Amino acid sequence: MRYLLLLSFALFAWKAKDPVKIVFFGDSITQAGVQPKGYVSVIQQYIAQKYPGQYEAIGAGISGNKIYDLYFRFEEMLELKPDVVVFYIGINDVWHKQSAGTGTDVDRFTRFYERMIERLKAKNIRVVLATPSVIGERTDASNPQDGDLNYYAGIVRNLAQKHGLDLVDLRREFLEYDRKNNPENAEKGILTTDRVHLNEKGNAFVAGQMIKVLFK
Amino acid sequence: MRYLLLLSFALFAWKAKDPVKIVFFGDSITQAGVQPKGYVSVIQQYIAQKYPGQYEAIGAGISGNKIYDLYFRFEEMLELKPDVVVFYIGINDVWHKQSAGTGTDVDRFTRFYERMIERLKAKNIRVVLATPSVIGERTDASNPQDGDLNYYAGIVRNLAQKHGLDLVDLRREFLEYDRKNNPENAEKGILTTDRVHLNEKGNAFVAGQMIKVLFK
Amino acid sequence: MRYLLLLSFALFAWKAKDPVKIVFFGDSITQAGVQPKGYVSVIQQYIAQKYPGQYEAIGAGISGNKIYDLYFRFEEMLELKPDVVVFYIGINDVWHKQSAGTGTDVDRFTRFYERMIERLKAKNIRVVLATPSVIGERTDASNPQDGDLNYYAGIVRNLAQKHGLDLVDLRREFLEYDRKNNPENAEKGILTTDRVHLNEKGNAFVAGQMIKVLFK
Amino acid sequence: MRYLLLLSFALFAWKAKDPVKIVFFGDSITQAGVQPKGYVSVIQQYIAQKYPGQYEAIGAGISGNKIYDLYFRFEEMLELKPDVVVFYIGINDVWHKQSAGTGTDVDRFTRFYERMIERLKAKNIRVVLATPSVIGERTDASNPQDGDLNYYAGIVRNLAQKHGLDLVDLRREFLEYDRKNNPENAEKGILTTDRVHLNEKGNAFVAGQMIKVLFK
Repeated sequence: MRYLLLLSFALFAWKAKDPVKIVFFGDSITQAGVQPKGYVSVIQQYIAQKYPGQYEAIGAGISGNKIYDLYFRFEEMLELKPDVVVFYIGINDVWHKQSAGTGTDVDRFTRFYERMIERLKAKNIRVVLATPSVIGERTDASNPQDGDLNYYAGIVRNLAQKHGLDLVDLRREFLEYDRKNNPENAEKGILTTDRVHLNEKGNAFVAGQMIKVLFK
Repeated sequence: MRYLLLLSFALFAWKAKDPVKIVFFGDSITQAGVQPKGYVSVIQQYIAQKYPGQYEAIGAGISGNKIYDLYFRFEEMLELKPDVVVFYIGINDVWHKQSAGTGTDVDRFTRFYERMIERLKAKNIRVVLATPSVIGERTDASNPQDGDLNYYAGIVRNLAQKHGLDLVDLRREFLEYDRKNNPENAEKGILTTDRVHLNEKGNAFVAGQMIKVLFK
Repeated sequence: MRYLLLLSFALFAWKAKDPVKIVFFGDSITQAGVQPKGYVSVIQQYIAQKYPGQYEAIGAGISGNKIYDLYFRFEEMLELKPDVVVFYIGINDVWHKQSAGTGTDVDRFTRFYERMIERLKAKNIRVVLATPSVIGERTDASNPQDGDLNYYAGIVRNLAQKHGLDLVDLRREFLEYDRKNNPENAEKGILTTDRVHLNEKGNAFVAGQMIKVLFK
Repeated sequence: MRYLLLLSFALFAWKAKDPVKIVFFGDSITQAGVQPKGYVSVIQQYIAQKYPGQYEAIGAGISGNKIYDLYFRFEEMLELKPDVVVFYIGINDVWHKQSAGTGTDVDRFTRFYERMIERLKAKNIRVVLATPSVIGERTDASNPQDGDLNYYAGIVRNLAQKHGLDLVDLRREFLEYDRKNNPENAEKGILTTDRVHLNEKGNAFVAGQMIKVLFK
């Protein structure tokens, strides 16, 4: 009888040690991130080596998503029972202004983003924000939407600061990396395949940036 | 004591006869609709004459709103305890594509719209849909966004049919009215002040179309 | 000796009967029009049968061209020594507004077009105008840019009338044809391959419309 | 008789000393530049003091002009008999992409610009190029069209270099000035009234930059 009790307790303790679930909430970059060499997979491999069983990296990205699409599937994402939610969003909100006339206004971007942050904080879920990385890798500030993307990155930085959240400043890190590694001022091919989506090096780079902030 | 009981009962019965609340859920047109000669006010006057105390017309319009903005304030709107929700939305979803690069994609327009319809139906709230009226009143199909607006009006018609909802086909009615009353092919000034927002005649016209469907 | 003289004279007379050169001045549709089953080739075949040696159909179309691109290569086109110039332009002027943010303003479209008309008239070159055909073949006026394209077609009609020029009203003819032959309301595949560029039937159709006006 | 000859010679010599005509060829900024405190007027005042009768500053700016509008009125501009032509163009080519969907493609911008340069060089007219200044004065590279404007400024720099022309690098000078004088990161009000058009200080600034290059 005493052993049964002990066993029960042990089981309970073990159960309590469910891995910390980290959900990456984003667009096509995150959707591709769960592919073998995608950034979510790289983070999961890192976890398997350093923190086996303690964390779990889960991708929740859907191609084309803008901030309000995340809001649309917010409840569905919550069903994944995240302990941490990492937002990596904003590229399409800017990009689609030009490519389809269906980008996101500055006020909506802020408003939808902030409401999700507040709801997660109310549930004691850790929130991490990532700034939108790049739409074009030219290093002389001449990618057509650089200005707008910088502005939206600024909104994300402000939200992180206002809500005391950890920030993965991908925008800044990408710019710095490209400045050092793109001597030809190419618009793609350094960390992206097509100015936006990550190549293998880009996925590794994002994983590294995420890891620095998540497991600091 | 018995009288007191009777009185209480009578009061309760009277209380049960709260007016049917009709919420008009939309954009700047509906926001202006609660002004003295706005379409919501005209409907309220109609109610006061024909069905005093039986209905109540409530405006819930905010300037610039697109379909996902309605979704953003959906819970807030529900706090108005509507018995009927009339959607009059879609103009900005098309218009802002051109004016700001921030219109709404066809799939999102449909998806957000449908989710709200389903939630209202699940609550046994009557749902009425109105097609987006006009962006320009030229009658020769040459207003720049006529094609796109027709397409979005078609989506609304399909949603009404699919979900068995009453439809106020403002798009169709405006086109017909303008064809008869705009011999000079003017782009504004017939039912609108500026190609989009309603003048006094436009407000009366919309009120009339709404009344026909709401109180049929 | 006398015979030689006669022969020379005959040769000279024959030489004087150079074929009437018809230059089709336009965009990718005209560029593709010189392909084996393209509309310019079909017209050339018609000429070979009906008016051998009397006319010559020459394609001068370049992909992506807008009205001011025609103006840019106007002198170059004149070097072809045309007797007749057929303008088939305007689709990109509308289309590129949405696809690249680089369409043409209404006033510029009119102004560049009119200057070329006037220059050709001053040279006694016959000018024929064609309205821009389609960007999407849906028959319920719901192709996104229908309204704007109708407007630009209207400008071309007005220019033809103002300057007393023959008009090939492709816009009107395409709409009518599609209304009869597109029962499914498809956006392409009737006369176009991709909503804009002509399939074989479309090329034959345009050739037919051009022939009716050119050789009336 | 000898005196008459001398007089004739003197008159001829005086005639030969016509002032060097400098035509500023541009958009609304140059159109406003001929107003009392506009940049063209400021340059003219500078001339009146330093080089009276030796130079003449003439404004040839029209509101809304893009590169192909300059080409459209190129002959008309030449009738001013310029000895020097200063191009200050490119803002609308970028700006109108967003505001009206009618900006200018990169290849057209280059092509029209270059043709005008070549024609002027062939006439031995001195050509000076100015890069497009600003669409927004924020100093953190977050004005929405900064990236695209930087790109078009780059095209102008390349054209100047390729054709051995003097360059007034307004883009660079404005950025530097704003970096020093816009600590609040305001989007307007430093050198512009509305993010684009010059205030008095802006006109003086442009005049100064032009003078440095023109009279070096």
